[in-house]
Amino acid sequence: MSLVVIGTVAFDAIETPFGKMDKIVGGAATYASLAASYFYDEVKIVAVVGDDFPQSEIEDFHNHNISTEGLQVKEGEKSFFWSGKYHNDMNSRDTLITELNVLADFDPIIPESYQDCEYLMLGNLTPQVQQTVIKRLKNRPKLIVMDTMNFWMDIAMDDLLETIKLVDVLTINDAEARQLSGEFSLVKAARKILQMGPKYLIIKKGEHGALLFSDDLVFSAPALPLADVFDPTGAGDTFAGGFIGYLANVGTINFNNMKNAIIFGSALASFCVEKFGTEKIRNLSQEEIAARVNEFVTLSQFAIIA
Amino acid sequence: MSLVVIGTVAFDAIETPFGKMDKIVGGAATYASLAASYFYDEVKIVAVVGDDFPQSEIEDFHNHNISTEGLQVKEGEKSFFWSGKYHNDMNSRDTLITELNVLADFDPIIPESYQDCEYLMLGNLTPQVQQTVIKRLKNRPKLIVMDTMNFWMDIAMDDLLETIKLVDVLTINDAEARQLSGEFSLVKAARKILQMGPKYLIIKKGEHGALLFSDDLVFSAPALPLADVFDPTGAGDTFAGGFIGYLANVGTINFNNMKNAIIFGSALASFCVEKFGTEKIRNLSQEEIAARVNEFVTLSQFAIIA
Repeated sequence: MSLVVIGTVAFDAIETPFGKMDKIVGGAATYASLAASYFYDEVKIVAVVGDDFPQSEIEDFHNHNISTEGLQVKEGEKSFFWSGKYHNDMNSRDTLITELNVLADFDPIIPESYQDCEYLMLGNLTPQVQQTVIKRLKNRPKLIVMDTMNFWMDIAMDDLLETIKLVDVLTINDAEARQLSGEFSLVKAARKILQMGPKYLIIKKGEHGALLFSDDLVFSAPALPLADVFDPTGAGDTFAGGFIGYLANVGTINFNNMKNAIIFGSALASFCVEKFGTEKIRNLSQEEIAARVNEFVTLSQFAIIA
Repeated sequence: MSLVVIGTVAFDAIETPFGKMDKIVGGAATYASLAASYFYDEVKIVAVVGDDFPQSEIEDFHNHNISTEGLQVKEGEKSFFWSGKYHNDMNSRDTLITELNVLADFDPIIPESYQDCEYLMLGNLTPQVQQTVIKRLKNRPKLIVMDTMNFWMDIAMDDLLETIKLVDVLTINDAEARQLSGEFSLVKAARKILQMGPKYLIIKKGEHGALLFSDDLVFSAPALPLADVFDPTGAGDTFAGGFIGYLANVGTINFNNMKNAIIFGSALASFCVEKFGTEKIRNLSQEEIAARVNEFVTLSQFAIIA
């Protein structure tokens, strides 16, 4: 049984008020698979890179027990490249460059060894490609988590709605939930989105935490207040990877386990933003993760005697 | 022993996307004292109104066991009047009219019977007047909670800083915390503000809940996700009143009790926004409050097995 992660594996150039990195490895599948690898042993990537992608980086996936059999390397082509600059408040950013390169005609290949997929993480990507992956799996996974963004709502809403129908969990941010539903109230937005297919909706609110909705249940998870956010790139992907990795490890899908999964995902995301790119989430110990999760417990738990 | 609340008792005209109220009773002291009255029996108001303020409204304070001995009624003058219009998102509003009237030269009178004040709630008001109240109390109260707003930071920062020095708990919103400290990170903002005098800082984040800081401790309280926010007027005052009322009832001031106080304050505030003005918080039962607090428990509690 395995956890398959599809998404981008790419180069990023990032500028934040704290500094500048010219070309570092990023991409949704990179962040999500690294995060998931701390909770689950059988993580497998589906992605595409060019021949400019360093072998050492592929080996680092293997060091995290992540299978790269589904990572296509296109000879004579270049990897996807994104460049962005964060504003001083770190809550908004400008995209400076987007070079699709190999991503322009990405046709995801699912190796036979991936057909044991039990948990599927659809990282942010064209909804059409996300859907293709679901269709190429012979058995419907036990749990499909889909991340997406406003960009696809702008240019591919029909495809997006078709893909959303097929998944169990959708993760988007609060502005995206409002855009997708046309409702300002997140409670009303959630009700509408849960009618679109997913059984669970996670609304990510950045420094304000996250909300989990399912039927009439709601859970509010805090974000860890941080003195310095060094680089927010990949935090949402890391959250999603930690979330599904935790659930794959636990094995039982229910609302209570989802709550914990959100706390573990948030803990991983809180590490992610402390350094540039994937630096921090490449070298975490289980002790560090447990201590960080404990901070979330201290942060949010209270005891009211009724 | 008593809980003294100082602030405005006033008329409001409010327009929201849900409707319009021409002249209803509002004011920080009104909301805060009503909220506190659900937890503590000895609530006493210090405020000023004109002779246009209806006797029936004063009687309603008495019905909530709130003493109005410190409520000055100025003959031949008019009560403070505020008129505002909320935008569609309910997160921002325009002030249409502010008529200070009796508030222009408000000189707070502390009746002798208020000198047993153990808990002091300084509702949003000129920092100079807030300070006068502290000085006119013969004994320093056990707990002083101060609410303020960006307006005083803009026009009376020196007075504000002097008053902040004298209080135990400061409640402001996130934008105000950033303005007061000059720091974007709320963690850094809190560190700086805690150096200014208060032992506790509460940062109110509206629909995102609230943060409590003290020394190196942090607590993150959720807000109840609501389908409809009918009228946000007075929610912060209601929060503060519920907060200090709960603490007065418990009697022991420490971080854990403050956490619970924030949950009770948030519960009261969540009622406040469900109707126009004070309508909802005038007629709450203890059962309703307990059930609402229970919603906060369900909303935010999780069980991670380490």
